[in-house]
Amino acid sequence: MISTPDPRPTGQTTAEPTRLAHLDAHTYRDWAAGEQSTVILPAGAFEQHGPHLPLGTDAILSSTIAEAVASRIGAKVAEPLSYGYKSQQKSGGGDHLAGTVSLDAAALIAQARCIMAGFLQQGVRHLVVLNGHYENYQFLYEAADLALGDLRSAGHDVGPVAPAILLLSYWDYVTEDTLETVYPDGFPGWDIEHGGVLETSLMLHLHPGLVAMDRAVSHPPAALPRFDRLPVVVSRTPETGCLSAPDGSDARKGSLLFEKVTAELAGDLATELGLPAREVPETS
Amino acid sequence: MISTPDPRPTGQTTAEPTRLAHLDAHTYRDWAAGEQSTVILPAGAFEQHGPHLPLGTDAILSSTIAEAVASRIGAKVAEPLSYGYKSQQKSGGGDHLAGTVSLDAAALIAQARCIMAGFLQQGVRHLVVLNGHYENYQFLYEAADLALGDLRSAGHDVGPVAPAILLLSYWDYVTEDTLETVYPDGFPGWDIEHGGVLETSLMLHLHPGLVAMDRAVSHPPAALPRFDRLPVVVSRTPETGCLSAPDGSDARKGSLLFEKVTAELAGDLATELGLPAREVPETS
Amino acid sequence: MISTPDPRPTGQTTAEPTRLAHLDAHTYRDWAAGEQSTVILPAGAFEQHGPHLPLGTDAILSSTIAEAVASRIGAKVAEPLSYGYKSQQKSGGGDHLAGTVSLDAAALIAQARCIMAGFLQQGVRHLVVLNGHYENYQFLYEAADLALGDLRSAGHDVGPVAPAILLLSYWDYVTEDTLETVYPDGFPGWDIEHGGVLETSLMLHLHPGLVAMDRAVSHPPAALPRFDRLPVVVSRTPETGCLSAPDGSDARKGSLLFEKVTAELAGDLATELGLPAREVPETS
Amino acid sequence: MISTPDPRPTGQTTAEPTRLAHLDAHTYRDWAAGEQSTVILPAGAFEQHGPHLPLGTDAILSSTIAEAVASRIGAKVAEPLSYGYKSQQKSGGGDHLAGTVSLDAAALIAQARCIMAGFLQQGVRHLVVLNGHYENYQFLYEAADLALGDLRSAGHDVGPVAPAILLLSYWDYVTEDTLETVYPDGFPGWDIEHGGVLETSLMLHLHPGLVAMDRAVSHPPAALPRFDRLPVVVSRTPETGCLSAPDGSDARKGSLLFEKVTAELAGDLATELGLPAREVPETS
Amino acid sequence: MISTPDPRPTGQTTAEPTRLAHLDAHTYRDWAAGEQSTVILPAGAFEQHGPHLPLGTDAILSSTIAEAVASRIGAKVAEPLSYGYKSQQKSGGGDHLAGTVSLDAAALIAQARCIMAGFLQQGVRHLVVLNGHYENYQFLYEAADLALGDLRSAGHDVGPVAPAILLLSYWDYVTEDTLETVYPDGFPGWDIEHGGVLETSLMLHLHPGLVAMDRAVSHPPAALPRFDRLPVVVSRTPETGCLSAPDGSDARKGSLLFEKVTAELAGDLATELGLPAREVPETS
Amino acid sequence: MISTPDPRPTGQTTAEPTRLAHLDAHTYRDWAAGEQSTVILPAGAFEQHGPHLPLGTDAILSSTIAEAVASRIGAKVAEPLSYGYKSQQKSGGGDHLAGTVSLDAAALIAQARCIMAGFLQQGVRHLVVLNGHYENYQFLYEAADLALGDLRSAGHDVGPVAPAILLLSYWDYVTEDTLETVYPDGFPGWDIEHGGVLETSLMLHLHPGLVAMDRAVSHPPAALPRFDRLPVVVSRTPETGCLSAPDGSDARKGSLLFEKVTAELAGDLATELGLPAREVPETS
Repeated sequence: MISTPDPRPTGQTTAEPTRLAHLDAHTYRDWAAGEQSTVILPAGAFEQHGPHLPLGTDAILSSTIAEAVASRIGAKVAEPLSYGYKSQQKSGGGDHLAGTVSLDAAALIAQARCIMAGFLQQGVRHLVVLNGHYENYQFLYEAADLALGDLRSAGHDVGPVAPAILLLSYWDYVTEDTLETVYPDGFPGWDIEHGGVLETSLMLHLHPGLVAMDRAVSHPPAALPRFDRLPVVVSRTPETGCLSAPDGSDARKGSLLFEKVTAELAGDLATELGLPAREVPETS
Repeated sequence: MISTPDPRPTGQTTAEPTRLAHLDAHTYRDWAAGEQSTVILPAGAFEQHGPHLPLGTDAILSSTIAEAVASRIGAKVAEPLSYGYKSQQKSGGGDHLAGTVSLDAAALIAQARCIMAGFLQQGVRHLVVLNGHYENYQFLYEAADLALGDLRSAGHDVGPVAPAILLLSYWDYVTEDTLETVYPDGFPGWDIEHGGVLETSLMLHLHPGLVAMDRAVSHPPAALPRFDRLPVVVSRTPETGCLSAPDGSDARKGSLLFEKVTAELAGDLATELGLPAREVPETS
Repeated sequence: MISTPDPRPTGQTTAEPTRLAHLDAHTYRDWAAGEQSTVILPAGAFEQHGPHLPLGTDAILSSTIAEAVASRIGAKVAEPLSYGYKSQQKSGGGDHLAGTVSLDAAALIAQARCIMAGFLQQGVRHLVVLNGHYENYQFLYEAADLALGDLRSAGHDVGPVAPAILLLSYWDYVTEDTLETVYPDGFPGWDIEHGGVLETSLMLHLHPGLVAMDRAVSHPPAALPRFDRLPVVVSRTPETGCLSAPDGSDARKGSLLFEKVTAELAGDLATELGLPAREVPETS
Repeated sequence: MISTPDPRPTGQTTAEPTRLAHLDAHTYRDWAAGEQSTVILPAGAFEQHGPHLPLGTDAILSSTIAEAVASRIGAKVAEPLSYGYKSQQKSGGGDHLAGTVSLDAAALIAQARCIMAGFLQQGVRHLVVLNGHYENYQFLYEAADLALGDLRSAGHDVGPVAPAILLLSYWDYVTEDTLETVYPDGFPGWDIEHGGVLETSLMLHLHPGLVAMDRAVSHPPAALPRFDRLPVVVSRTPETGCLSAPDGSDARKGSLLFEKVTAELAGDLATELGLPAREVPETS
Repeated sequence: MISTPDPRPTGQTTAEPTRLAHLDAHTYRDWAAGEQSTVILPAGAFEQHGPHLPLGTDAILSSTIAEAVASRIGAKVAEPLSYGYKSQQKSGGGDHLAGTVSLDAAALIAQARCIMAGFLQQGVRHLVVLNGHYENYQFLYEAADLALGDLRSAGHDVGPVAPAILLLSYWDYVTEDTLETVYPDGFPGWDIEHGGVLETSLMLHLHPGLVAMDRAVSHPPAALPRFDRLPVVVSRTPETGCLSAPDGSDARKGSLLFEKVTAELAGDLATELGLPAREVPETS
Repeated sequence: MISTPDPRPTGQTTAEPTRLAHLDAHTYRDWAAGEQSTVILPAGAFEQHGPHLPLGTDAILSSTIAEAVASRIGAKVAEPLSYGYKSQQKSGGGDHLAGTVSLDAAALIAQARCIMAGFLQQGVRHLVVLNGHYENYQFLYEAADLALGDLRSAGHDVGPVAPAILLLSYWDYVTEDTLETVYPDGFPGWDIEHGGVLETSLMLHLHPGLVAMDRAVSHPPAALPRFDRLPVVVSRTPETGCLSAPDGSDARKGSLLFEKVTAELAGDLATELGLPAREVPETS
């Protein structure tokens, strides 16, 4: 997670941080006992994103978006899942590429299940899993379903309102309008948006120091078959590792994407969970 | 991980970062192919550390120490294991306490196994697991052993020098001399060093903004039996959640501990792995 | 699987069946040893499909399509995976509905892994997994990846051409052109195509005796949020269990879908695997 | 499963099918809620049965017997477990033989556990597992025991009569009298009844088009040791893959076996579960 | 295991013990490296055997028989599997009875797999699993098959003669002749031989101090159905927990059974494994 | 387990044995139903202990100590876990050494979990796990935690006093005073006490016939690094396999250690569990 700087002067208690790992246990305990305590768990990956984006892109983006959404709805952000499910050729270039270190299904499910059940058993009312790596989704779903089963079998007292887990990928909150602005020549499709304009623009807006546009390479989008083949035919992934080139990425597009996604997402969560939708704070 | 700030001006390639998640894939690929590429994987926990230390203390300390060691020996640091094995009453106060969200054995082993095998399969020469949460150790050991088995069964070509995994806890590099300085009245023992002088002093030195000394509570050390009992007898853990009070902690002691541990550890690794021991760079 | 009738007169050997379960072991052995032996494994589910379609719809459709494709490319069809991953509200109405009996991730992965590895270890050259239940896909992918690892760790002799596993869902072979014909008022989206026009039309063409159009109910399409919520809010699924109504389904549309999908798919497989694309035989 | 032909004219609701996969969800829901709803789950294998019987013999026989028994007692038949546990040399010739694709223990247990728990959680009163592959039995037993544990830990409301799982192999309903008729020269023992007179005669009666008696080979019964040896000594299995030859098989014996077994089994289940034993319907 | 007394005077090396746990590591190393090193692994259970036999009966008998067989063929005996698979009503009375503490399938398979692979990886040539608890058999088989797979994936160098695992239950070596002598009124069948004449007579011969014949109860044999039902109908197991009464048991029958079984078994193993069949030593 | 001799004359009921495996089921049932029924489960290993100690040392010592403690507090002793977790170089010399056959984490956890849950489900009030193999500890802890979860999810009725599991290693009951007597030249540390003075002296006192002091080798203590390295550097373990030499071991020291440990441990358990601390019986 690209972190907010340490928020408190030395040795003094000040404003409560958004990032849960920065809270002390007693502050956490009191917060978690509240009626609307909501934890956002970002899920990413350690995965190649071509020569111009960092390996941590998926976890960085999901964490940064999670912090912005949390600020809007009074939620807090858990430490991200920094390693994700195996990169698939049709959505991430393939698990064989240098820079991609992945979890298998059992490992990802087990890890996410423990964390989800853990927060809910502690009295947290709502858990929102904010995914930033396509391949993770179904395994996070399984983890959520098993975690709820764990709560039931532990005889967990759930009070008048049952705890809920919400699961989403942030790009599902990019609207058609936004796509038209970001891709004036037409949106090439989510399937090849790996290391392309969306991720690059978001990173240029949020973490420009981690982007090396001078290393970016222009190339045609990957032409991948309708099936998955294993082992992969290596030559089907462009040499950069990106499925489409980041041509035309800029921080302005990233800003638009970021503001739209966080606003849409915060609004959706506030409505669904009965949380107050705060005025937009200054973005960190 | 308490991160170093983004190290590069917008959109320009500059100095290579220590943190792997900040590297791009092609830079990583070239680095990993080197004869002495060494990755340090910090392991921590999300665990209560009383009213004055943050929940992420174990991952923060292991990550920060890992970065310092990496700078000395030319290694790089992977994203930390931010969630750890269940907190045990005799070393962490117990898994029932608010603020502690843990992995079970299977989840921790599976996650660490995939990550270890993943880096080694990519050609990284050495993997050092730097543990900061006592309860993790044996499960990380199992993960390492299984990861090596995975390499063997995948028929991985290991070249003239077999890849190695090193596993250690950072406090094993605190010497008797250092202990005498930090604990002038005598060291109370590692078993109750949870939220006590060592962790608090290190945090005051490294991340003072995350420590709230005004919330720290003085109390006698926990008096725990020689056995573990499950379910725990809740009253055996002090109300703070710390097993010993942080009385007498200060940044100076933290600085001493940090410098000694990183120097000892870097020296040990350099010798064992045949790496160059660099001049100590300025600490970040 | 809706089976072809017994293809041979009593006690006499005649034409070789397409369905592997109907072959004898010695015929199978000789066939599998061929250079282009290809097995298609249909994957379905046991899942409610509203009041007008049978519970086995997904397995029935994937099996029937598999048989037709197999006839075109000289492949054979394995017994289907008749039970699938948990029905999700946004793609199948939800796992809580009467008539849905599902496998969890571990069970589905384990079963598919054993079957895939088994066929390849027997010398079958290519395995095509033809999916008919959306929720299965990622778990079948994991199974394929693990099965290939099993082959490697068993030291399986793979000959000059490595065995390959292909994975696809049949609806990925419905083209835009076909959609425009089938949905003259506009395609509502794959996400709510559960018990709707596509599945109903296919069943009316292929297995009309299993469709009860007099029980079909007209209702607006489901309006589902962008996130998954667990446990589900039951009222979000229409009372029928279908995510869109089958209004306008007919056998003619089913015939068009079937012919187009099988032709596209057979062509794709023939090209990818170097198989002869046969003249279309009479459909059974 | 060798299926009954589609039981309903196009698009019209008629008689309720025995096979659950052919029911629609609402009909299923009403049926399952009845006080005596009973599901029979056939368990088979994909296993070589020599040159004269099809690979699916075990699943075909257990499914066909299940349908006949279900007709007698008003039960319904679930989709069969088409893949079974590893063929053992002493009961099935061995798992190394071409045509045998098996599940390991974990996969079979996991699959059967999910299915059993699934039906019972839906309110089905009784589940009968009808086994047709010797090697499956103990793993199905474990699955049943674990499924009942799942129900308990889910806090399933079991009503006045607890749900029950019954587990049996169909050949346990072949009586001594019947054996004397079928084997006039003495019964050689269940252990070598693989591809022999019992299975062959049943298939000749029930599915003659799937039997190739002109390919059957006469040979002495296998002489197998009292121990299992792994890896197997390949030469101990006769070249046909059958443990005894099908000499003397005929449809008349098959008819006798089938009628006796279904009658005995139906009677047993009706008594145990308090179901009405119907008049024998015309066999399909 | 009912052990042989400590075989050596204080602090002096004497005759090499049969029980592996009593060997020192260097003696073991030299022995294991021999061309015919054979380990027998007894498998039992911790299971009620009525009011007159000890809970450890199955492990005691398999261990004692293993020691006798080992003496005859120059093998050594590993520590037994003292806990077995769940007692089933039709073979052991049921897992609900006081005194029965069982492993589930996964636990038994995992334990046995590690032990089997461990001995073979150490160079032991042959491993014989000698089972004394009916319910264990299939799970031990799976363990053996997986252990051999582990050897293969570890690239274990197996030398000119591949290592083998033999698996058997000791009662398979009771011949018809012996049964006629032990059961002059006819053998009631292995299925209800739990706590009956065979086990009781063997224990009276081998470990009379562990048998309380004054507590034995006479009752008719259990009348159990042809199916397994779960949960069990408790009343179907006789109140003693035995499936047949031990009436007529005596040490003489036990001696006959023991001598016949050990002789048959030793002969079979010697032939199969090419071991010398020694003169029968004095029984301990 | 080095067993007590058969405690009863042939066929007669006499004094109740301490070892549970020697009890009959009805005696067990009555005993377990008592308010203070306590089972001690010894945990050991099958592990090389140099040329002078037997492979079963860890299980033998934990079992013998368990029996002595049980006699003092009226507990009973379950069959030991005879195989333990992988030997680690820094505490046991390493898992690669001849004579060491180990369980992996999953196998040890699964086995211990089933046994612990099993005894508690039978109504046993307290379970004490007495560990004698360092590497086991954390895995036994996980097993205990999971077993308690199993009880909860089974809806186990726990009565007024919840069942408890206690977990300890016997050497934690060796006091400083005792260490000073046993190691007059200073205690070298628990980490290299493998095959050294403590274990050797205890064995010389308790089972002298299993110790071969004439084979013992004197050598300097192992000098091991502060990290674990995998695969191990073989040369770091002394050739004997012992981490320190048994020089100076004698039965008198063993007697002192044994009496002190059993007294301390029995006292601790009696206090914790509210059991009567009996007069020390004559040691067997």
